[in-house]
Amino acid sequence: MRPFVFVNIAMSADGKISTRERRQVRISGKEDFSRVDRIKAESDAIMVGIGTVLADNPSLTVKSPDLRAERRAAGRDEHPIRVVVDSRGRIPLDSDILHKGTGRRIVAVSKQAPPEKLEALEEYATVIVAGEETVDLTALLEELHRRGVGRLMVEGGGTLIGALFARGLVDELQTFVGNIVIGGEDAPTPADGPGLLREEDFPRLRLTEAVRLDEGLLIRWGVEKR
Amino acid sequence: MRPFVFVNIAMSADGKISTRERRQVRISGKEDFSRVDRIKAESDAIMVGIGTVLADNPSLTVKSPDLRAERRAAGRDEHPIRVVVDSRGRIPLDSDILHKGTGRRIVAVSKQAPPEKLEALEEYATVIVAGEETVDLTALLEELHRRGVGRLMVEGGGTLIGALFARGLVDELQTFVGNIVIGGEDAPTPADGPGLLREEDFPRLRLTEAVRLDEGLLIRWGVEKR
Repeated sequence: MRPFVFVNIAMSADGKISTRERRQVRISGKEDFSRVDRIKAESDAIMVGIGTVLADNPSLTVKSPDLRAERRAAGRDEHPIRVVVDSRGRIPLDSDILHKGTGRRIVAVSKQAPPEKLEALEEYATVIVAGEETVDLTALLEELHRRGVGRLMVEGGGTLIGALFARGLVDELQTFVGNIVIGGEDAPTPADGPGLLREEDFPRLRLTEAVRLDEGLLIRWGVEKR
Repeated sequence: MRPFVFVNIAMSADGKISTRERRQVRISGKEDFSRVDRIKAESDAIMVGIGTVLADNPSLTVKSPDLRAERRAAGRDEHPIRVVVDSRGRIPLDSDILHKGTGRRIVAVSKQAPPEKLEALEEYATVIVAGEETVDLTALLEELHRRGVGRLMVEGGGTLIGALFARGLVDELQTFVGNIVIGGEDAPTPADGPGLLREEDFPRLRLTEAVRLDEGLLIRWGVEKR
């Protein structure tokens, strides 16, 4: 058993999530900001890869006071559980995600992470060790489900999303396509890592919605079961 | 003066135009095939980069006999002028694009292309030399305009498209987004090359249409003038 996993990503019209220097870029606008805040507030946990933490230092908190109040009224923490996939335990101890806002944090590491780092991390987060070299994502999702996570939002980056798709662990993809071209063969994309080679291995999607939002387009896809 | 330049590309939901091995992948279906054939028939010329010629060996002919007949009835060649951007003159002399179907061919090279190769090429194509190291795309488009090209379709690949966008030479982008995920940080995307770094340099688009087609979505964007 694992949570319902949905990926939310904003990309340029040419499929980039930032520049080749991995600098954060404004791809969407206010309407999409509100949408993302809402789906975040509706999730039990929100997950990012360590690359995104190192590049952007996000807090992944719910921004709207109303949405936070709704969560409190429902007896939940103000923010979803923040989960970092960090195979080698590289997360800086002063990362915003470990400090901003109330609520639980989970850092998932592999057996390669240095024990002294894990000890230090345990002051701020629950540490889950899963996998030998890299985090075993299937085992991690099962563990999250055991800890009560029914709905998991994945915010990126491309390496984590690529790994989740390659393992068949994604149920829905929400893509905001912004009205810019970034370009660049080395710019990060919504699904990076080694990628897939054989057509029979490509995850197949089912278009469920396409609506104008800000100056771009929100596309929602369901992922077909294999 | 240059032609109206529109880029037509099919990409996966995660912004890839093929696998990291650059193997051609079926991203769209019959409806998109017909659409692409029609917009090709409506163009005066169709342009690709040498990478696409070497990887896919496309002929870029109009496939529908009806559309070819319409072109003939209008006093035009059956197929649009096929243009290859090939800075170093690497196109194989037996490439389909030089042999399949009637009509004119243009191979655009830089001064780096070996003269003996150009001499051999001239049996099959008009050779245009523009640029020192790589093809000067602005000069090439002006030359195509002088030769009567009013409407130019660009079929890829990512390197050529990225270069056209970086130089402000694109008027419209048509993207078919297919219902698959390919993934891969090294997989080609709709706009490759070095890419852009500063937000003020990103081409800004205007969403003009988004319609379901086959199992995916056709998105049309106008490019804002700078």
